[in-house]
Amino acid sequence: SLAHRCHHSSTAMLDVPFLPFCAFLGTLGFLCVAMVGTWCQHWRGGFSLDGSSRTFNWHPVLMVTGLVVLYGAAALVYRIPNTWSSPKLPWKVLHGSLALGAFVLTVLGLAAVFCFHNSQGTPNMYSLHSWMGLGTVLLFSCQWAAGFGAFLLPWAPAWLRALYKPIHVFFGSTILLLSVASCVSGINEKLFFSLKNGTMEYKLLPAEAVFANTLGLLILIFGVLVVAALARPSWKRPDSNSLASHQ
Amino acid sequence: SLAHRCHHSSTAMLDVPFLPFCAFLGTLGFLCVAMVGTWCQHWRGGFSLDGSSRTFNWHPVLMVTGLVVLYGAAALVYRIPNTWSSPKLPWKVLHGSLALGAFVLTVLGLAAVFCFHNSQGTPNMYSLHSWMGLGTVLLFSCQWAAGFGAFLLPWAPAWLRALYKPIHVFFGSTILLLSVASCVSGINEKLFFSLKNGTMEYKLLPAEAVFANTLGLLILIFGVLVVAALARPSWKRPDSNSLASHQ
Repeated sequence: SLAHRCHHSSTAMLDVPFLPFCAFLGTLGFLCVAMVGTWCQHWRGGFSLDGSSRTFNWHPVLMVTGLVVLYGAAALVYRIPNTWSSPKLPWKVLHGSLALGAFVLTVLGLAAVFCFHNSQGTPNMYSLHSWMGLGTVLLFSCQWAAGFGAFLLPWAPAWLRALYKPIHVFFGSTILLLSVASCVSGINEKLFFSLKNGTMEYKLLPAEAVFANTLGLLILIFGVLVVAALARPSWKRPDSNSLASHQ
Repeated sequence: SLAHRCHHSSTAMLDVPFLPFCAFLGTLGFLCVAMVGTWCQHWRGGFSLDGSSRTFNWHPVLMVTGLVVLYGAAALVYRIPNTWSSPKLPWKVLHGSLALGAFVLTVLGLAAVFCFHNSQGTPNMYSLHSWMGLGTVLLFSCQWAAGFGAFLLPWAPAWLRALYKPIHVFFGSTILLLSVASCVSGINEKLFFSLKNGTMEYKLLPAEAVFANTLGLLILIFGVLVVAALARPSWKRPDSNSLASHQ
């Protein structure tokens, strides 16, 4: 059974079975989405499409939901041991579809902040947060397109798939880590912007600051655990012969 | 030779030899240290110990030097292939010493920001940056103490070393990633604090903003490359028999 898999000295975590770990990750991801929604709804005035800060509020919600939680779910598809005995193609399609869903939410999340900046006359793309975030999204778009071209188009040659696969795996984890770092710097920046009056100053640590700081730490933990799960050798889908991986 | 090592499908990067890669990493790390020093010296008024913002300036320099670059060097010690044929103990001592040096610089970096806050009457530990950063340093202190107790004290039992080693490896990479995320959020925050007047506003992207944003991206790239090098199976020191690892 999974709980008794042999122990690799290079494994990154204690020897826990994948599915309970995954249930824990799902709960943590759900909590991140619920908390970013609560933050924007309860403390930041809720949501609208009028170009005000209520339009901006879609930005953190869509980014955490798309580029962190849904992206993490897409990345973990091949780690579900129950799928290892069945053909790979349906899981490839699921992986690509979840990633595409994550990408659509991400683009909507970018649209929200550009719309807000433009209607307020604020310049776009000046902060380190914005550079890192847009860089992450550009990498993600390349990753999706290259993954589609190499792994889902049936005429992609096997040597190309074999060459590109470790690169795709490496950038898969890297993009998630960049995305988590972007979220954390964005939450930090938003709290400095929003909490600057009287008794509500960030430095006085009002309830909103404690809540959003905690959200930032949970996003960090989610990202680190997903990347650790991806890196764990015993949780990887066994390398089928090149024929099966080429279906 | 290294350049012809067998290709693992789980490797994270293209098949490059370790030492040139390491020289590149060293150059990148040196550039990060030089740039954070230049930023503080040229744009932020230089360094002093008088409790002013010139005292604060030690904070970014010490953190980037200690918790990112020197920490990264410590983490990579066991990856130097030339060391694999010689006894492990001297390399353990080097690993522990570099990590201790990184820890000392980190504690001095914390002292710089606490001293600055206290002499300005600013509260400590309210921002997400500070929570994440202090959490990173606390994890690092546990990591160093546990590593010393388990791997350097000669009477630590072999079963404890075997049990703890994957945990130590996992937290080694995790702490570096948390440290990089802390640096990025800190640079972002500092630029919003410092660039807020007239033509020097952050949103107008003056030279200082371009310079420090670039520094943030280079720190990110450095951290991702170190973690990728650590994860690469063919760059790991071959697992000696338990006797050799127990010397």
